[in-house]
Amino acid sequence: MERLLKKCQIRNQLIRECMAECLGVYVLILFGCGSVAQVVTTEDKKGQYLSINLGFALGVTFGVFVSRGVSGAHLNPAVSLSLCVLGRHSWVKLPFYIFFQVLGAFLAAATVALQYYDAIQAYSGGDLTVTGPTATAGIFSTYPADYLSVWGGIVDQVIGTAALLLCVLALGDHRNSSIPHYLQPVLVGAAVLVIGISMGSNSGYALNPARDFGPRLFTYIAGWGADVFKAGSSWWWVPIVAPCVGALLGTLIYELMVEVHHPSEQSQSQASCPEDRSDKYRPPQP
Amino acid sequence: MERLLKKCQIRNQLIRECMAECLGVYVLILFGCGSVAQVVTTEDKKGQYLSINLGFALGVTFGVFVSRGVSGAHLNPAVSLSLCVLGRHSWVKLPFYIFFQVLGAFLAAATVALQYYDAIQAYSGGDLTVTGPTATAGIFSTYPADYLSVWGGIVDQVIGTAALLLCVLALGDHRNSSIPHYLQPVLVGAAVLVIGISMGSNSGYALNPARDFGPRLFTYIAGWGADVFKAGSSWWWVPIVAPCVGALLGTLIYELMVEVHHPSEQSQSQASCPEDRSDKYRPPQP
Amino acid sequence: MERLLKKCQIRNQLIRECMAECLGVYVLILFGCGSVAQVVTTEDKKGQYLSINLGFALGVTFGVFVSRGVSGAHLNPAVSLSLCVLGRHSWVKLPFYIFFQVLGAFLAAATVALQYYDAIQAYSGGDLTVTGPTATAGIFSTYPADYLSVWGGIVDQVIGTAALLLCVLALGDHRNSSIPHYLQPVLVGAAVLVIGISMGSNSGYALNPARDFGPRLFTYIAGWGADVFKAGSSWWWVPIVAPCVGALLGTLIYELMVEVHHPSEQSQSQASCPEDRSDKYRPPQP
Amino acid sequence: MERLLKKCQIRNQLIRECMAECLGVYVLILFGCGSVAQVVTTEDKKGQYLSINLGFALGVTFGVFVSRGVSGAHLNPAVSLSLCVLGRHSWVKLPFYIFFQVLGAFLAAATVALQYYDAIQAYSGGDLTVTGPTATAGIFSTYPADYLSVWGGIVDQVIGTAALLLCVLALGDHRNSSIPHYLQPVLVGAAVLVIGISMGSNSGYALNPARDFGPRLFTYIAGWGADVFKAGSSWWWVPIVAPCVGALLGTLIYELMVEVHHPSEQSQSQASCPEDRSDKYRPPQP
Repeated sequence: MERLLKKCQIRNQLIRECMAECLGVYVLILFGCGSVAQVVTTEDKKGQYLSINLGFALGVTFGVFVSRGVSGAHLNPAVSLSLCVLGRHSWVKLPFYIFFQVLGAFLAAATVALQYYDAIQAYSGGDLTVTGPTATAGIFSTYPADYLSVWGGIVDQVIGTAALLLCVLALGDHRNSSIPHYLQPVLVGAAVLVIGISMGSNSGYALNPARDFGPRLFTYIAGWGADVFKAGSSWWWVPIVAPCVGALLGTLIYELMVEVHHPSEQSQSQASCPEDRSDKYRPPQP
Repeated sequence: MERLLKKCQIRNQLIRECMAECLGVYVLILFGCGSVAQVVTTEDKKGQYLSINLGFALGVTFGVFVSRGVSGAHLNPAVSLSLCVLGRHSWVKLPFYIFFQVLGAFLAAATVALQYYDAIQAYSGGDLTVTGPTATAGIFSTYPADYLSVWGGIVDQVIGTAALLLCVLALGDHRNSSIPHYLQPVLVGAAVLVIGISMGSNSGYALNPARDFGPRLFTYIAGWGADVFKAGSSWWWVPIVAPCVGALLGTLIYELMVEVHHPSEQSQSQASCPEDRSDKYRPPQP
Repeated sequence: MERLLKKCQIRNQLIRECMAECLGVYVLILFGCGSVAQVVTTEDKKGQYLSINLGFALGVTFGVFVSRGVSGAHLNPAVSLSLCVLGRHSWVKLPFYIFFQVLGAFLAAATVALQYYDAIQAYSGGDLTVTGPTATAGIFSTYPADYLSVWGGIVDQVIGTAALLLCVLALGDHRNSSIPHYLQPVLVGAAVLVIGISMGSNSGYALNPARDFGPRLFTYIAGWGADVFKAGSSWWWVPIVAPCVGALLGTLIYELMVEVHHPSEQSQSQASCPEDRSDKYRPPQP
Repeated sequence: MERLLKKCQIRNQLIRECMAECLGVYVLILFGCGSVAQVVTTEDKKGQYLSINLGFALGVTFGVFVSRGVSGAHLNPAVSLSLCVLGRHSWVKLPFYIFFQVLGAFLAAATVALQYYDAIQAYSGGDLTVTGPTATAGIFSTYPADYLSVWGGIVDQVIGTAALLLCVLALGDHRNSSIPHYLQPVLVGAAVLVIGISMGSNSGYALNPARDFGPRLFTYIAGWGADVFKAGSSWWWVPIVAPCVGALLGTLIYELMVEVHHPSEQSQSQASCPEDRSDKYRPPQP
């Protein structure tokens, strides 16, 4: 068996990274959207908003565990973009990463729809709607609360993604808090948990263009129809654009408030302790 | 006292491993089914679905802590089978492991029934039923939701167990995320938590033939009768067969998407750091 | 200030250990009973059963952190007794440990009563009762559920404490899972969490004679009267006697199923890794 | 980009520390008050008291991660004061720390108000009130429960802050439990979690003058008016004064019960293990 598997080995670094990103986002969405499906189809009897927060948080944690050794576990086009801007990731790879992140989210949405097929049929009476009392499109992608204006939604997503990057960069800054690499997936998950707890009610904390667009595309194809793009005053583009702006803003804040001011000598004292050097986004050497 | 205990020492490796697997599954089911008993008999007053998820998750964590140094903590026939297929565990030991895993689950179900004897009597009025408003068989083994078809149930268990193995293999793959051995029980528990949160409502996420069949056998003998095998269109065989299929599928996905593509040289750089080598399923040397 | 404090230094090892045990149990009960007080006096609005489980779990975690470097953090007469029987703790110290454990619990109960004085007055209308709709004695010590027989209560406490010791001994057995000492308080807390989730509804999982008797004594003196000893068919002695039996049973099970069978040579390979040697209950050298 | 950022580097140690304290408290309040806003504006549908507890706990955790490598992560004037009294922090820096802590809290409150602008408008009907059925001032700063007397409130805040310092000092005392520096933010967060679970219902566990006064000042300016200082019998000064008293009391208890009695020789055996030396509040060397 081991030998049979060995024959399938792929040595191309970019293909390996793309497969890892795809699987990482797949795991994230499988657990994240699965937890929403469980809460929606059981009408809060086997879950609650907190369990959705935990589902996405642990989804991120295991998505990172699955992929980080290979691709660095971006799992989010907005994160990939920020790293490109900071010069820590190659611009050439960016479109490949984004495509496979969206693909992973799309496939995971399909898996959730398959696993919850009977449940969604029973809950919705077979009528796949985007709004209304038995709407099920919200299992897969985000829609804004009734009260939210488009500007309010943009502000919400910008702040949320900025907060995410602030946390992620602090966790990865080995001159601030040098966290062992194996704890970072857990702590990135904790950051997603607290953002879901404190910034989730306005528009469902997408914070990630792939997380939102992949499943939305799936629902468009799978029977929910064009409403998935029309609902919420054509909400769909906000969780694509705003997280990119927010990620850059959060990066800028952390860099200007903390990282650039680290005295350069301090980095030497760390150099002798290899397991503490946990530069989360160091691209793997090809 | 220490000396008295020393006299009972058993040196046979297989017996030791079987006792450890038995105790590990015992702890898993004691906490897992205990948390269901608490929620059912108090009618959600002293627990909720999330506390059941936590009960099974921490049950797995402590089941692994109790047994992993001796047997590698499979605690699940589907996991043992996958490891045999991968060539990481001996086929000869497989039937012994499975028998003692089921035995541990059976004994734990008996303990839960003893501890909750008064509570179950008070809740059910002394009438041990498998279905109906005061059904208590669901404390011990899983039954499908009303809406679930048999095919839907098979798909549910295959996906759930595949997700479990995906996480477990990623946690144990020291060339992806080299996690210290003492954190793995906690993270395997977290994987079970997120699966319970995102894939629990269809059919109770058995994911483990021993976890389901041992307690079912106990309820059959202890007064719930033949209904435990008839209910849910003879559901009982699904959580035995489907997890084995799912475990193999999950193993295949992780191997083909990530593990086989690791460059072989990379493993050398890890070799000097013994505490990070956390090959979860390395069979103990006889 | 530092110099002023230095003058108060006590060098007697036993006094230091007793103070540490007292403070450790104080922290445990302060957080544990405090979380019950919050749930009871707000009528589940600012907490729920799960928050009580978390209160006692984290209470144990911080109780251990506060005391373990000095006294080994027994925090429980039943644990101290088991360690004496196993020959890992001195019989001479046992009565001192027990007295200071009970004292810590008594003082913590008094602190909770002080902090929640206004809340208890408002909730109970100033009438401190042990049973009835606005009973508040359950904030401090445990009482059995209505349906529970005395034998059922004894079985419940024996099983619960046996499960606790099983987990605690597995966590401290460095030949099974060598856990760094700094993680053990967290994992012992997790064991208390899962026991509260799976074995809490019958009689409130005292598992600890000091945890139950200290606060009960306080309520007897502070205005709840003799009912605290009469309620539940004179329940008060069960959480004193049964945990001691359960602790010994759990110790026996773990020793006979796992610990005594460890091959003796294996212990050598661990010896070179000092930070992994985490013998939880090694008594500090005088 | 990196080079552009490098030009902004500030080398002054005090400015760096003040910016870190400001950002740390900002993160704490952003997540903490955000979680209250989510619970209040969705009327408990997308959160509950436990999610507020988690919001502040993880807010503290990430606030510490963001700032600790630079400023030591006090994030609380009462903590800074205690460290000055103990001689572990410079009195000269104290006013700067306090000012930037309050500033961070103020700015975070403004961010929460911006992010939840539409939600607060919809919930309150545009009427920003401090008391009454749709009061929203409690999102930002703490107000006492109806039953609480002023003395009761002072006792509540003194006990709560003393408990916080007890835990924080135990976590940082490397001769008691030597915890790796990267785990301390998580455990300090856990301490805040358990305090919120067990001491939150009387008056909202401010425990921190900056956490309470910064957002209160914001609400005063932003439309809630002078009521924010008048409500609760002029409650506003209690969470400023009582935490300072409580912090000193908790410091004194831990020092007198545990820390001063550590034998001085023991500290040597630790000296060879640099990664375990986790003196949380060691002021960075200028």
